Amino acid sequence: MALDTLKLGLIGAGRMGSLHAEHVTQRIPRATILAVADVNEAATRECANTCGIPRAIGDYHEILATSEIDAVLICSATDTHAQAIVDAAAAHKHIFVEKPIAQNLIDTDRALAAVEAAGVKLQVGFHRRFDPTYLRVHHAIRHGDIGTPHMFHIVSRDPHPPHLEYLLACGGLFLDMTIHDFDMSRFLIGSEVEEVYAVGGALIDPAHGQDGHVDTALLMVKFQNGVFGSIDNSRQAVYGYDQRVAVLGSRGAIETENHFPNETTISTAENIHRDLPLNFFMHRYTEAYTTEIATFVDAVCDDKPTPVTGADGRIAVVMGLAAQRSLAENRPVKLSEVPGA
Amino acid sequence: MALDTLKLGLIGAGRMGSLHAEHVTQRIPRATILAVADVNEAATRECANTCGIPRAIGDYHEILATSEIDAVLICSATDTHAQAIVDAAAAHKHIFVEKPIAQNLIDTDRALAAVEAAGVKLQVGFHRRFDPTYLRVHHAIRHGDIGTPHMFHIVSRDPHPPHLEYLLACGGLFLDMTIHDFDMSRFLIGSEVEEVYAVGGALIDPAHGQDGHVDTALLMVKFQNGVFGSIDNSRQAVYGYDQRVAVLGSRGAIETENHFPNETTISTAENIHRDLPLNFFMHRYTEAYTTEIATFVDAVCDDKPTPVTGADGRIAVVMGLAAQRSLAENRPVKLSEVPGA
Amino acid sequence: MALDTLKLGLIGAGRMGSLHAEHVTQRIPRATILAVADVNEAATRECANTCGIPRAIGDYHEILATSEIDAVLICSATDTHAQAIVDAAAAHKHIFVEKPIAQNLIDTDRALAAVEAAGVKLQVGFHRRFDPTYLRVHHAIRHGDIGTPHMFHIVSRDPHPPHLEYLLACGGLFLDMTIHDFDMSRFLIGSEVEEVYAVGGALIDPAHGQDGHVDTALLMVKFQNGVFGSIDNSRQAVYGYDQRVAVLGSRGAIETENHFPNETTISTAENIHRDLPLNFFMHRYTEAYTTEIATFVDAVCDDKPTPVTGADGRIAVVMGLAAQRSLAENRPVKLSEVPGA
Amino acid sequence: MALDTLKLGLIGAGRMGSLHAEHVTQRIPRATILAVADVNEAATRECANTCGIPRAIGDYHEILATSEIDAVLICSATDTHAQAIVDAAAAHKHIFVEKPIAQNLIDTDRALAAVEAAGVKLQVGFHRRFDPTYLRVHHAIRHGDIGTPHMFHIVSRDPHPPHLEYLLACGGLFLDMTIHDFDMSRFLIGSEVEEVYAVGGALIDPAHGQDGHVDTALLMVKFQNGVFGSIDNSRQAVYGYDQRVAVLGSRGAIETENHFPNETTISTAENIHRDLPLNFFMHRYTEAYTTEIATFVDAVCDDKPTPVTGADGRIAVVMGLAAQRSLAENRPVKLSEVPGA
Repeated sequence: MALDTLKLGLIGAGRMGSLHAEHVTQRIPRATILAVADVNEAATRECANTCGIPRAIGDYHEILATSEIDAVLICSATDTHAQAIVDAAAAHKHIFVEKPIAQNLIDTDRALAAVEAAGVKLQVGFHRRFDPTYLRVHHAIRHGDIGTPHMFHIVSRDPHPPHLEYLLACGGLFLDMTIHDFDMSRFLIGSEVEEVYAVGGALIDPAHGQDGHVDTALLMVKFQNGVFGSIDNSRQAVYGYDQRVAVLGSRGAIETENHFPNETTISTAENIHRDLPLNFFMHRYTEAYTTEIATFVDAVCDDKPTPVTGADGRIAVVMGLAAQRSLAENRPVKLSEVPGA
Repeated sequence: MALDTLKLGLIGAGRMGSLHAEHVTQRIPRATILAVADVNEAATRECANTCGIPRAIGDYHEILATSEIDAVLICSATDTHAQAIVDAAAAHKHIFVEKPIAQNLIDTDRALAAVEAAGVKLQVGFHRRFDPTYLRVHHAIRHGDIGTPHMFHIVSRDPHPPHLEYLLACGGLFLDMTIHDFDMSRFLIGSEVEEVYAVGGALIDPAHGQDGHVDTALLMVKFQNGVFGSIDNSRQAVYGYDQRVAVLGSRGAIETENHFPNETTISTAENIHRDLPLNFFMHRYTEAYTTEIATFVDAVCDDKPTPVTGADGRIAVVMGLAAQRSLAENRPVKLSEVPGA
Repeated sequence: MALDTLKLGLIGAGRMGSLHAEHVTQRIPRATILAVADVNEAATRECANTCGIPRAIGDYHEILATSEIDAVLICSATDTHAQAIVDAAAAHKHIFVEKPIAQNLIDTDRALAAVEAAGVKLQVGFHRRFDPTYLRVHHAIRHGDIGTPHMFHIVSRDPHPPHLEYLLACGGLFLDMTIHDFDMSRFLIGSEVEEVYAVGGALIDPAHGQDGHVDTALLMVKFQNGVFGSIDNSRQAVYGYDQRVAVLGSRGAIETENHFPNETTISTAENIHRDLPLNFFMHRYTEAYTTEIATFVDAVCDDKPTPVTGADGRIAVVMGLAAQRSLAENRPVKLSEVPGA
Repeated sequence: MALDTLKLGLIGAGRMGSLHAEHVTQRIPRATILAVADVNEAATRECANTCGIPRAIGDYHEILATSEIDAVLICSATDTHAQAIVDAAAAHKHIFVEKPIAQNLIDTDRALAAVEAAGVKLQVGFHRRFDPTYLRVHHAIRHGDIGTPHMFHIVSRDPHPPHLEYLLACGGLFLDMTIHDFDMSRFLIGSEVEEVYAVGGALIDPAHGQDGHVDTALLMVKFQNGVFGSIDNSRQAVYGYDQRVAVLGSRGAIETENHFPNETTISTAENIHRDLPLNFFMHRYTEAYTTEIATFVDAVCDDKPTPVTGADGRIAVVMGLAAQRSLAENRPVKLSEVPGA
């Protein structure tokens, strides 16, 4: 039985929660947010006011107890994702959760088991799969435009590093940042990963190197179908948010460019230049974030599978853990070596 | 005394009216549309339903009679613009009107006189002034990035011709299509136009050539400050909506590219290619259309001047009339030769 | 009876003469230069030394009197071209002449009549026809890749103005610089020109405006087949030598970019930039200049028609004269209005 | 004591030998080739005829015995390089040798010892160091344009695989093809390599996989200064010869594009496309090959150091051997693990 519209609860009123709230309110007519919950009272109130959400509360369990609410968007701190999933599943709410599901496999599997047991839908926030440029690459490969894929290269660089505090607490570069590229590689190549090799360093700032952390990394990923590729990550590309991918195949190649705030080129006596690319992930991926949630809403309303599953979210975590070990031991690590994988 | 929010009436529920209604509803929190009026009852109802507009009526005079309404968006057929302006001014509503004000100067001046007499604000719908790419060019020139402008070239081509009926009734290529480029040339060069020369033909389809109409044209425009430039118009660029501008100055040059649906390039054994540019003016200029109305809303609420005035709208009409005469007489025509100019 | 190799005499040891001498010596094995003549003794000697030319003489009539010499390259001052052609034809030498044939039609026709009477071959130096990029456009149009041409735009800008003395003596912008674009428009469109309209000004430096001269100009050209287009000329593009063309057709469009010294892009915190395009016509067109002479050599050796004829050279002069009159009278001028045309 | 001009002997009249002969004859006035030697009599004769080389002989020892000859260009089969170097050094000839010096370190070191003992100059044929685009990258990095380098990515793909026979006999992908990229990474990063990791497969054609050979490979290289990067090699890019590099630094990034035969873009109803890049390494690198030999000639004539030394050639071989081992053992291999390194 299809739903006409979806009644949502928003868990987390931080940056991502507010972004999704804005998109739901302005651009996703099929959904409406009935309540937002965050331990940060001020943030909750502001989010509710800005987006016209009727209820702003502190404890997300109130949302889960609201029978009228069909589904939740979990956008709280990463270390609360797993428990929120467990709780939401127990309350029989469908779940959209920001990546990663958790920073370890035990929590990840606990969350997925709860989802499985409750029979609710789960979608993980790999929004790049919904970006028109990456989608175009995906479709071209599926359509055979470049023949059989052989090799790929993903560039994913942030414009500037986060605060040191965040950097040390985020679960590491691989689970915080590369996790998107891990998912993208699977999305594009359409096979499963066998092995990961990672090198890295604290090249931007030695302070980033505490506890084995890195701010710059290069990874090599081998797939079961024989494809291999590299992922290039940096916490600091001074020229802006750099998000590109290239795939070589037997019958061609495909590459993407960044997105720019305008399409203007200026020629002077010094050089020929254009403005820097869109600098902020929220601007770069506005459309992708909106489509992501709209697709989740449609999946729940129409009882269709979600396009990014719990299994997708889990594999990305396994890849991140394998990469951490590879970096520590300086050798290629098979996914099967990750305990619990 | 500043208004917090603006209460709008929408006159015309066609393509442009519906577009503005959608933008106001979804993206312009400072405005709300209280009523929509169109002689086409079905269109009015659909527009009202889609955008949650409380009242859908047939006669726009009802809107003008609603004291609660502060301002109107006139998006009805071109030949009704002037009278609607006169009526709205008489009702002391602020006015946003789609281009052109009218297809002749008598009506144009009658409308502008009514606005003047009523002391209401008027903004004409030259939305390209609000597009990020054209704005970047404007700012670069004002900022002196290319020194003193010397020469320009504007390309403005539609992906495919309108129906013959529209083409013959629209007031001609110059008032229907080139009028945007006339305004753009003034916006970028920042001087007034002295003379226009136009050549053209029915090159796409001889049927377009009825009554002296053309479907392809090249115009030369001379400004009082010595700058000159060309405008390249076609009703049919099979590769998509082609909207670009280039300006040469004493210290550099600036050029723009089209906007594309994605930033993906595919290399095959045949060639290196990318998808066609955004094909539809509503997609190409989504952001510009929104900013245009948001700026009008702010201008009325904060009692500031509107960014595109009645005088701007009038000059573009004079240029169109001069171009028509130039084409007919195959000679450069001064704006001062246009009766009433 | 085909010649194995061509024995050349070079008339004029200036910039163009030396360039052709270098290309013949290094890259055109089928030709050899036996003598170079120039009134400037030092230049003649240097050219001869650099390129290993056996004879360096002052008076070109010595070259014409050398029976061993098959053909001449006339690269002397523009005002000597016509007489040199007449003399060379009388001596039964085949002739390559730099553009323009002359700065007026009387001299042009006198030269062409001499060539006709002597039955020798004549090629005019419109080297851009041999440039790989322009050739690609030509072939694409001939091949129907863009359907029937409708409209074109040619940009041709020098990096910096010549000395004032040269500028005032060169025959004017249209015969000195635009003449290449006149020829290019005919080469690409494949029809004959009916009418020219020109606007212009001394925008770079008021001193350039003496005697009605201009340093910046915009021209409109109408062809007999209904195609029209614009030509954009400037004596100063501070960012380098700007040479581009764009053609719109019924089934597509074609555009060219400048040539750059390298294919490197640098992204910094300020912008994304690349180096300026090749700044000097001799570097930009090295390949075209070489192919041009090689083609002349082949045409003479194999007794084939030359690819750029005296008629081609003459029409470009007529267009230049029509443009001068158009500028002076501010009206479109038909080629048939040019006395003698 | 500087030499005015250099007298050369050419050893090897195959593809590379003939190319260098042509460049020396046509474009390098400071050198002349007195003799060419190759066991293939027909090739030797043709090369001599084409380039006007006075002597065509079978045994290169005759060249070495010619006291008039100052230096040799060794362009014979790879497995003859080392012995030819030893012989030439013994004859006190300066030496330019195509890459690689040898396919193993014993031969490499024997050759370098002979050069050292004889005190002659040696230059190894890493021509890409002389390409304007790669040079621009090198200079930008040295000049600090992108700050301190952090990470790089090199793409080097051939348009189509060589014959199977060649592929199996060439010493493997790493010594035959990647060796250029190994050298390029050192040239750009300006540090020494510590470790190499390689993955690869016979993805284009399983037949390429005999004896552990690969036709597609991805390598990771770590430098002593903390920089790391990847090298992407394929024997088959169906769209043409793909040669690019990208470097990320602390203050910016630099990237290169391929070279194209023309700068023309065609827009049709289907897509926007341009022609494939230059497809053949001899066309892509014409200028680099010429500058390479001209620089060698200058180094010998003016008694300056050669720009690519025997040590440079040796390190590239060590990297190739380390990569072979890495691929075989699927682990990162330190250069110090290579026997003899």
